[in-house]
Amino acid sequence: MDIKSVISFAEKHSQRFIDDLVEFVEIPSVSSSSEHIDDVRRCADFLKDKMLQSGLQRAEIFETAGHPVVYGEWLGAEGKPTVLIYGHYDVQPVDPLDLWESPPFEPAIRNGRMYGRGTVDDKGQIYVHLKAIESWLSEHGQLPVNVKFIAEGEEEIGSENLGDFLDKNQELLKADSAVISDTPMFKKGMPSICYGLRGLAYFQLNLRGSKQDLHSGSFGGAVKNPIHALAEIISQLKDESGQISIPEFYDDVIPISKKEHADLSALPFDKEEYREDVGAPALFGEKGYSVLENLWARPTLDVCGIWGGFQGEGAKTIIPAEAHAKVSMRLVPNQNPERVGDLFEAFIKEIAPPEVEVSVERLHGGDGFVADVSHPAFNAAKRALQKGFGKKAVFIREGGSIPFVQTMVDALKIPCLLIGFGLPNENAHAPNEWLDLENYQLGIISSIYLYEELAQN
Amino acid sequence: MDIKSVISFAEKHSQRFIDDLVEFVEIPSVSSSSEHIDDVRRCADFLKDKMLQSGLQRAEIFETAGHPVVYGEWLGAEGKPTVLIYGHYDVQPVDPLDLWESPPFEPAIRNGRMYGRGTVDDKGQIYVHLKAIESWLSEHGQLPVNVKFIAEGEEEIGSENLGDFLDKNQELLKADSAVISDTPMFKKGMPSICYGLRGLAYFQLNLRGSKQDLHSGSFGGAVKNPIHALAEIISQLKDESGQISIPEFYDDVIPISKKEHADLSALPFDKEEYREDVGAPALFGEKGYSVLENLWARPTLDVCGIWGGFQGEGAKTIIPAEAHAKVSMRLVPNQNPERVGDLFEAFIKEIAPPEVEVSVERLHGGDGFVADVSHPAFNAAKRALQKGFGKKAVFIREGGSIPFVQTMVDALKIPCLLIGFGLPNENAHAPNEWLDLENYQLGIISSIYLYEELAQN
Repeated sequence: MDIKSVISFAEKHSQRFIDDLVEFVEIPSVSSSSEHIDDVRRCADFLKDKMLQSGLQRAEIFETAGHPVVYGEWLGAEGKPTVLIYGHYDVQPVDPLDLWESPPFEPAIRNGRMYGRGTVDDKGQIYVHLKAIESWLSEHGQLPVNVKFIAEGEEEIGSENLGDFLDKNQELLKADSAVISDTPMFKKGMPSICYGLRGLAYFQLNLRGSKQDLHSGSFGGAVKNPIHALAEIISQLKDESGQISIPEFYDDVIPISKKEHADLSALPFDKEEYREDVGAPALFGEKGYSVLENLWARPTLDVCGIWGGFQGEGAKTIIPAEAHAKVSMRLVPNQNPERVGDLFEAFIKEIAPPEVEVSVERLHGGDGFVADVSHPAFNAAKRALQKGFGKKAVFIREGGSIPFVQTMVDALKIPCLLIGFGLPNENAHAPNEWLDLENYQLGIISSIYLYEELAQN
Repeated sequence: MDIKSVISFAEKHSQRFIDDLVEFVEIPSVSSSSEHIDDVRRCADFLKDKMLQSGLQRAEIFETAGHPVVYGEWLGAEGKPTVLIYGHYDVQPVDPLDLWESPPFEPAIRNGRMYGRGTVDDKGQIYVHLKAIESWLSEHGQLPVNVKFIAEGEEEIGSENLGDFLDKNQELLKADSAVISDTPMFKKGMPSICYGLRGLAYFQLNLRGSKQDLHSGSFGGAVKNPIHALAEIISQLKDESGQISIPEFYDDVIPISKKEHADLSALPFDKEEYREDVGAPALFGEKGYSVLENLWARPTLDVCGIWGGFQGEGAKTIIPAEAHAKVSMRLVPNQNPERVGDLFEAFIKEIAPPEVEVSVERLHGGDGFVADVSHPAFNAAKRALQKGFGKKAVFIREGGSIPFVQTMVDALKIPCLLIGFGLPNENAHAPNEWLDLENYQLGIISSIYLYEELAQN
């Protein structure tokens, strides 16, 4: 089959591919919010239809205990390998809404970017593959490999039901390699293969001091303020060097090898440029490690949200009854989220002041991942990216989490290629999320090549 | 004039006096919120009309740079002393609204209590005096003293424009003594004269880490989280013994005298009962002082509110760009709020981590107050309360602030009687604020006596 005509098809239809993505992004499939439960369902149905329209032989909704999984397949390449493509059609919440320059679910195109929630994480990247598949099937009615495509609706809330889906559908999902496009490129113009992800353990801390809010004048001086207690707890979670203070937390952390240290140091990373991009007065990370090591290969702890008492205009003089915080830890491979949860709970109990009630809720967790890059699939991916972008691919890790990856690798025993087409500053999880439309196009073309390269394996 | 018939009048009309108060509480005069600006104005107009209906000779709205002052007078007691009565018709915000058992501005009567925002703080206590005045004037067309009545609309936001009103109207406000009913009784059945108040200094802390929210996976480990920075700052504001750590903070604090220590120790205070009432697992206060000393005669610092990042349902994985806190300090007499503000700002600058931007907003401040209880007005008050309640009055202090008191004492050089009819657990500033209706009635009767007693001075 002539690949040139497939590439031409993708190039000819590039504007339509953008228009099609707009429709997908318009659906507010926020998985964490119960008010969007119908939108998530609608998004799954929409994607199923689009899979069929792209030429897949079969597409189906699979129910789970939570949001559904969308499955599609094309199995007409007899004797050829099978590629399992994974993406997620659910998106992050949108608040703070007032910081969006255009509404999150009304995609807007400005300066070669598409702005909207889910444009890069991960709807745009699902469409990279769907459009690559469409290009092959439109031109030749054939793909060079067999394709199985799953898109889940719970990635942003920990993929809790995907493990179960996988267990129940092992035969259906059998494949020779997996491809996931949900990680960023190292930078624009530098196609990247990600070989490591961090895991996640996410908690909510709930503190109660008194049975209700108290007048800060009448009661100030006699009770422990739960906000103070929470501040004291948070300030004890890390030490001055940026190390997490939870006992035994680092026991299972694999040290960074000399080779990896050298490889990561060789990447063109400009600390000052990074700081400026982030907009922070100064960077802060665990001492003794480079920024990339801290981002990719060391665990971290962050409070993602905090609230308690009066947040309005002016000066309300109360001692609040309650204070709360969301605490997220990024773990490295070999750290177990359950064990980390146990250690965290034990430490919180130890340091919680006796004058307040403290409880820990475990909101979700997921394993980290590191790939064996010696597998031939990684070479195939390198060749495809070189052809698609006209530039050499780099090997990177990623600080974020895709909990499903390790689960899948454990269950299916296949290599997993993390080839993403997003950029690190595309505001995934923040206001004004965007997708670089050139990368969208080059991603489609690279994927067209990728299926052919994987057919050679 | 026969006082018995005045008391009878008040007793006969006790149910109507309750009904009248309901109307006053129904007006949502929340001074801190710009959305209630018209309600505050409406409340001032309402009160002016009620002053005239109670029989005062004159009532008027005085404009200020903020919410207006309502002024009323009856000056027909020739040769008799003049009493200046002060109250405030503005109320605290109502959030968290979901914790109210009945709507804050739809007063509900349950078990001899009236529930509603402002019932005790301070609308009910304004009405105590208005109904005592009405009782005298209805029965005799005369009061035993001359009365000037001012009600301001900015007490809950620091009485910022009242000093200016006072300066401009010194002649109008000239009086021999002042009476303020805005403090609690020590406990039910124990009529109380308050001789000390704490001052106030209220701030907002604003922290910024990055230019926008960041993905906690992609960026976690490289930046300082502003919530962590805020937690570190808050945890450094007080030490383990409950002492405020701001340098020079205690320089102007007057030590508690042996006599006062003995007097306060003699009050019937049950620590365990207090703890249970508050609903805290344990009490917490500055070491080396009794609970009452910490509440009344020692300064405190409390975070009244905190917010930053994700507060919704589920698990959003971000590092927030901003974090904020409202910080309130209760000061003791001789501490200057301006100087405390300077010390606070300097300390925040010193301890703020360099990786975040920190700013301090000064929201408001006010002086503390201690009275010279040897003045004859205090004896008059004791006699009136003994007659009204049939019980001996106690001398107490109060942890809350009425910034106007010290300003008034400085300007008018008159003794100021703080005789309140609220109870410490009536949820002023909290959800389900209530007023004990027996105290409302006994307050009216005591005030009827008080005017007569003050006429003897």
